Amino acid sequence: MAYNIVTFNELAAQFERLPSIGKKTAQRLALFVLEQPKDYAVRFANALTEAKDKIHHCKICSALTDTEVCSICSDTLRDKSVICVVESAKDVMAFERMREYRGLYHVLNGVISPLDGIGPDKLKIKELLSRLADGTVTEVIMATNPTVEGEATASYISRLIKPMGLKITRLAYGIPVGGDLEYADSVTLLRALDGRNEL
Amino acid sequence: MAYNIVTFNELAAQFERLPSIGKKTAQRLALFVLEQPKDYAVRFANALTEAKDKIHHCKICSALTDTEVCSICSDTLRDKSVICVVESAKDVMAFERMREYRGLYHVLNGVISPLDGIGPDKLKIKELLSRLADGTVTEVIMATNPTVEGEATASYISRLIKPMGLKITRLAYGIPVGGDLEYADSVTLLRALDGRNEL
Repeated sequence: MAYNIVTFNELAAQFERLPSIGKKTAQRLALFVLEQPKDYAVRFANALTEAKDKIHHCKICSALTDTEVCSICSDTLRDKSVICVVESAKDVMAFERMREYRGLYHVLNGVISPLDGIGPDKLKIKELLSRLADGTVTEVIMATNPTVEGEATASYISRLIKPMGLKITRLAYGIPVGGDLEYADSVTLLRALDGRNEL
Repeated sequence: MAYNIVTFNELAAQFERLPSIGKKTAQRLALFVLEQPKDYAVRFANALTEAKDKIHHCKICSALTDTEVCSICSDTLRDKSVICVVESAKDVMAFERMREYRGLYHVLNGVISPLDGIGPDKLKIKELLSRLADGTVTEVIMATNPTVEGEATASYISRLIKPMGLKITRLAYGIPVGGDLEYADSVTLLRALDGRNEL
């Protein structure tokens, strides 16, 4: 019989299911938990079930939240005239890390992808249209990912809302800050050239 | 008010306490948990508290176990004439990964370290001596770490048990397999030279 601790293996297995955590790291993390005061395991366990129980999509913008309406939609100081349309709730977090954008969001929960059987009806486009209906919003920033599907979704939605007479913008393409021209792909470089600004 | 999900932040904070997990990775892992079926969070939470509740030190060898006696000490097929003395329960796992060693272990739970106020009495040395008393064990392998404290502890214990007339061995020093001579430190290289074997 090999050395075998059932509960340890089970804990390591749960860590191993996490992305970018291999077998050895999982064992190391499981050992770390055992070395901590009991309090840590309990708090960690509670955090896992609480988060999974309480976090859902905001009923207005579909961002993640554990309150009925997310803290962005319910913030009276936010600029309600701008909506940034993103693919997923993760993108909202990326934007918020920037600490500059003060408008609202709308999470589509995916992109149009015929190959995966995802048509426009599977996305929160209807909800976006109804948010734009009352005329409060004057600008929609299309911030889907710079992929084929992201582009297609952005232009599909643009065509839909164009008749409303809103300003529709798209995130700028270009070379990433801190990047190296040598390693930039030609398409990105071409877009950076096309979108060049006067100094 | 910034974008804030209390339960999400709490979960990410627990992940961030793990070694080698930074703020961004912690958020990514927390998001991953949210994307999984509820079952995963529940199993993970249970694994955390179960492991912490049930895992303790084997009453014979002090290795980690969730049974009264660990699966190594209770294995009748193990060679009871050899005991490998290691510093910590993690070292038992490292040896077991090798799948070659068939003897028993004895975990000291530390090393003699006067600067940290750890004297021989704080280690499981008394327990080792009583295990050696009945004469079943004929070889003790000193497998403490190749550090100053590990060496000191190994030689302290060796001196203690020498009168018992046992074979006392120490792990071989040398260049690590797959290592590069160019990067080997001089002490390691000297030990490898001293311990050279005839081909």
